[in-house]
Amino acid sequence: MHKIFYPNSVAVIGVSEQPDNLAASIVRNLLDFGYKGTIYAIGLQDGISHGIPILTSVGALPDDVDLAVILTPAATVPELLDACGRKGIRHAVIESGGFTEYSEGGRLLEERVTAVARRWGMRFVGPNCISVINMEQGLCLPFARLDPEAAKLGPVSVLAQSGGVSITYLILLSETGLGANKVVSMGNKADLDEVDYLAYLLDDPGTEVICLYLESIEQGRRLLELASSSTKPIVVQKANTGRASAQIAFSHTAALANDDAVVDAALQQAGMARAASFGDAVALAQGLTLPPVVGDDLLIISRSGGHAVVAADKAEAYGFRLMPITEGLAAQVRRLFRADVIAPTNPLDLGAIFDFELYGQIVERSLHALDPDALLLIHTYSSGPEASMSQRLARRLSELSRELEKPLAFCAFAQRHEVEALKGHTDLPIFTEIEAAVRALAISRDRHARSDWSPALPSMPANRSNKAEALLAHDGILTTDAALDLCASFDIPVAEWAVVRDVESALLAADSIGYPVALKGLSTEAPHKSEAGLIALDIANTEQLRGAFGGVVSALPEYDDRESASIMVQRMLPGGREVIIGGKQDPSFGPVVLFGMGGIYVETMKDIALRLAPLSRHGARQMMDELQGSPLLHGVGGEPPVDLEALVDVLVSMSRLLVTCPEVVEIDINPLLVLESGAAALDARAIVSSQRT
Amino acid sequence: MHKIFYPNSVAVIGVSEQPDNLAASIVRNLLDFGYKGTIYAIGLQDGISHGIPILTSVGALPDDVDLAVILTPAATVPELLDACGRKGIRHAVIESGGFTEYSEGGRLLEERVTAVARRWGMRFVGPNCISVINMEQGLCLPFARLDPEAAKLGPVSVLAQSGGVSITYLILLSETGLGANKVVSMGNKADLDEVDYLAYLLDDPGTEVICLYLESIEQGRRLLELASSSTKPIVVQKANTGRASAQIAFSHTAALANDDAVVDAALQQAGMARAASFGDAVALAQGLTLPPVVGDDLLIISRSGGHAVVAADKAEAYGFRLMPITEGLAAQVRRLFRADVIAPTNPLDLGAIFDFELYGQIVERSLHALDPDALLLIHTYSSGPEASMSQRLARRLSELSRELEKPLAFCAFAQRHEVEALKGHTDLPIFTEIEAAVRALAISRDRHARSDWSPALPSMPANRSNKAEALLAHDGILTTDAALDLCASFDIPVAEWAVVRDVESALLAADSIGYPVALKGLSTEAPHKSEAGLIALDIANTEQLRGAFGGVVSALPEYDDRESASIMVQRMLPGGREVIIGGKQDPSFGPVVLFGMGGIYVETMKDIALRLAPLSRHGARQMMDELQGSPLLHGVGGEPPVDLEALVDVLVSMSRLLVTCPEVVEIDINPLLVLESGAAALDARAIVSSQRT
Repeated sequence: MHKIFYPNSVAVIGVSEQPDNLAASIVRNLLDFGYKGTIYAIGLQDGISHGIPILTSVGALPDDVDLAVILTPAATVPELLDACGRKGIRHAVIESGGFTEYSEGGRLLEERVTAVARRWGMRFVGPNCISVINMEQGLCLPFARLDPEAAKLGPVSVLAQSGGVSITYLILLSETGLGANKVVSMGNKADLDEVDYLAYLLDDPGTEVICLYLESIEQGRRLLELASSSTKPIVVQKANTGRASAQIAFSHTAALANDDAVVDAALQQAGMARAASFGDAVALAQGLTLPPVVGDDLLIISRSGGHAVVAADKAEAYGFRLMPITEGLAAQVRRLFRADVIAPTNPLDLGAIFDFELYGQIVERSLHALDPDALLLIHTYSSGPEASMSQRLARRLSELSRELEKPLAFCAFAQRHEVEALKGHTDLPIFTEIEAAVRALAISRDRHARSDWSPALPSMPANRSNKAEALLAHDGILTTDAALDLCASFDIPVAEWAVVRDVESALLAADSIGYPVALKGLSTEAPHKSEAGLIALDIANTEQLRGAFGGVVSALPEYDDRESASIMVQRMLPGGREVIIGGKQDPSFGPVVLFGMGGIYVETMKDIALRLAPLSRHGARQMMDELQGSPLLHGVGGEPPVDLEALVDVLVSMSRLLVTCPEVVEIDINPLLVLESGAAALDARAIVSSQRT
Repeated sequence: MHKIFYPNSVAVIGVSEQPDNLAASIVRNLLDFGYKGTIYAIGLQDGISHGIPILTSVGALPDDVDLAVILTPAATVPELLDACGRKGIRHAVIESGGFTEYSEGGRLLEERVTAVARRWGMRFVGPNCISVINMEQGLCLPFARLDPEAAKLGPVSVLAQSGGVSITYLILLSETGLGANKVVSMGNKADLDEVDYLAYLLDDPGTEVICLYLESIEQGRRLLELASSSTKPIVVQKANTGRASAQIAFSHTAALANDDAVVDAALQQAGMARAASFGDAVALAQGLTLPPVVGDDLLIISRSGGHAVVAADKAEAYGFRLMPITEGLAAQVRRLFRADVIAPTNPLDLGAIFDFELYGQIVERSLHALDPDALLLIHTYSSGPEASMSQRLARRLSELSRELEKPLAFCAFAQRHEVEALKGHTDLPIFTEIEAAVRALAISRDRHARSDWSPALPSMPANRSNKAEALLAHDGILTTDAALDLCASFDIPVAEWAVVRDVESALLAADSIGYPVALKGLSTEAPHKSEAGLIALDIANTEQLRGAFGGVVSALPEYDDRESASIMVQRMLPGGREVIIGGKQDPSFGPVVLFGMGGIYVETMKDIALRLAPLSRHGARQMMDELQGSPLLHGVGGEPPVDLEALVDVLVSMSRLLVTCPEVVEIDINPLLVLESGAAALDARAIVSSQRT
């Protein structure tokens, strides 16, 4: 793929002398951005485009062209690509639209394009994209005219599913002062997709931070594996989260929607930061270029008391500790300032200081005296002398940050042109909103605090018991007994039960299990047992069992065969707390474990935690802590805590079940009863589909 | 107060020829901003400051000076203010620090300043502030040098508790293109406070939208009354929400923390928009200058498919409906474009259109054909010809918005200088983040959709029953029986009960009430009855009552007199749903009603709704709908709904109780049992303090 970003020569196909010709803009962009390689232009008619002669056939090219850039009507693309292949070109960028994103005919055309590329061993970007920019090389291939002044070379590379978004990122990264390295608009991803580009960028020396804008994630697990294989920070803006956006997303890049809660869990587990907007993504990238934040201790220094109050609010919201100012530092500040108007608080309000030299000294001494995990510096200043003093201060702060290897978030409030001017004097990122700065520090901290997690799954499912194999042999919804058997075969404790067909067998089973028992009519047609009268609880003795049995049988749906009705006799356990443990195979991210509090109150509240399998015991404990209702597990209102280790066991077993049985596409234990000692699954449901493996 | 904003002459006190003299910057700012009135300078030594002669005493001023601006050491302020009073000056701005925000001595000094002002009938701004700017008048009084280029005249006025923040607002409002009208940094608010300034600005013809930055709200109820008296939109950024920020907030402006959940509820009820940051406040102000959004139907038009996806996500998150494109409109677009590459979706993706004339036509026809409640237009463009076409488009769009009185949020993505240039060509606000634009439209919609609510409270509490008067006669914690009596006296239904002292009376009471009953030991010392064994439930008959009575008595704390133990015999009701209804007198906002789901699950979840009294039946229903757990009230899992009207009755009664009894500083009914028909308070607690009235 290297030749796509670093071609020695580029052939732009689709160029004409018409003033509104878009391919000619590609030639213009290459020239404007100072591309050093050779540029060829191909078009239907000969002529000159921006000084480059237009050749009228691909065959007229020399034999050593590295990259073809195609912007011609969709129908012409397969043939042109074939001609490129014949000419020995092995890399292409197809910018034309009119493929899968447009119509069924377009989809077929896209398949033809892919087939041609396969035949020649070509790799290509697109189609339906505005393509690739490599700022290191002056390679600027979008058909939209770009101003080289708007693009600054820097350490951040961008992969975007949308052309417009890739340009927005380029402009924002450049105007923020950070700068862009490589920018790719991926389009329909018929050949190369985010996984390919990401693999390249993770090895690319010029790329330090990667921003991904995605509307769909097809190979989620692979993406996580890649991200986990590198220490380069990755920021992800995942759009297309709602019903309304799905339609437009599909029509413009053929993207399908993901389960957004799974995306959230997956990105977090792999240590990728999720951005909420374009501006947020750029702010996070700024924060991730700083030295890592390795703890919660934050020092805030501000020239404005109001800004300091806002910063303290945000620091608290993002879980930072405002470390106390030591008496030693307070004494130093008093000595420096020869006065007592600075209160020894954190935030440290330096509003009374108009000498920025002194200000810089206080910052330096504070860093030495307190050794915070991060420093947030809020600098408000006016034009004139304060502006030039601020430039000196900014220089000094970048030296300090480098020297002490401390993350220093510099947040400037002044007229925009003054803030712009500041950027030339420091290599520190400059933030312009307090929350953005605090959030960027928090994201860096969270990234470095996260526990190692490997998204790798075994290539071959293994170690399945004969029991499990038998249960999974047929597709469909498992009845409660089968689902509980499946759970039990993965060491998940279940409440003792037996399945019977008549009342006499029920009585025998209940005697063996011990009263009280519950009766449950088994039917794959009636998932909500309690609503349908299929369940009878708290049966204390033989007499009650005789009384209840008939009712449960008659509640079975007509279409179940009542003569051979299956009734579960199940042991009832006293006390405990109901939870829900489940999981599914996400089409993109693979096995996911779900944990939530049970009971109708909590089902209404949607208090759940998600995590991708494989789940460690540590991960299982984190899931428990994430729930709002977690105090209930630890015991509230004088109640004893539940057996947390037993709960961890079940969560880890559920993870193992999902990893080992990819054909279990959905499973729920609802409820699992967690007791003071131990736990027991009372009811379960599972869907088996071997198609999905 | 008019003379503070529109003085014909200003005397700046504290001026010297020293280069670092701050008062001289005030003189400079007045000259730079083109103040048209007369400027006087007063200092210790005569001389010239920026061409203005420095007088050495206030006595040397002429007799008709409108406004004194004082920036001298705190200790000198009372005497100088007195001299101003003697000279007939009736308005002052005191910028000096060193008062209440600094020390106890400063607090006393501030009291002296206030006393002097009272004596002369003077009104003043500050102390400890950077004061007042009136862009209409070129009046620029901050001691920090400001660049007149950074300040644009516009329709938004700002009241800020912090000087630094007021300048940040001025710059952001100006750079956004909106512009500022009057800006006040209020400082310690020793005399004039936000209520005074707000009253002025609500009547000020130049002010269309008001932004408030507050770190404390002392007269919350009064603020709400003012806000409700006007149709001018008010945006509030309330900082100082956390524990950490309280300390710095206090030291810089002597601000105390408010209950943030009450602030949220109050602002929402009064139709004020709460901003999350400086940038958010300015974006909301932009949105509030548009014609009102009077419904949920949104049309999104975008030149970038990716931006459209992001916009659709946000639209959904903010509760907008993306109205379908009609076949008629689709046909018109096809005719205009003479092609079929535009899918008839909302968002409408016009990425394929490079002729902005056509683009403008499509916008116009869409507005006519669909008549949406709001239009979000996302305009991505490059430099060169697209930039000048964009300027023409922007002009056309402002005409369209005016003509059709439609809110049109224009969101531009281009190089910053191009977006800057655009601002000269349109009076539409220009947004630069999609979420900001959608949120601004949503805030406008919510403001216009809110139901009328009057924060007015009766000046004299009235209509209290003799029973209530007796219960409120003494301060302290009410026992359960007294608290239930208080509730009953406001028509809140309570479960039937009797208080007894011995088991024989208990048996008589239970016979009269009817079994099953509960026993509750009454003790003001033991608030958590169930934990202390003070409660016995489900007593089904005489025998059980005899058995339980002794246990409850012996569980009463040692320090309660067991010989005269008070035990409540209370009727037990079957079924129903437990909720919590309570309230308090907020020191700033007055009576507040609380509603939440009961039970330990929901107490852990903190699922509560707050609303200021007086509460209408409509408001009570809204509180119920706000809870995440509200489906439980409407019936889930086959359970019947509870008596919602009975619940509304209790909420409204609780509101009346709090309004009528300001000495009830806190009250909780926990639980209130809501039945299929009716409701009953089972337990209650109240704190009475006449000090608070």
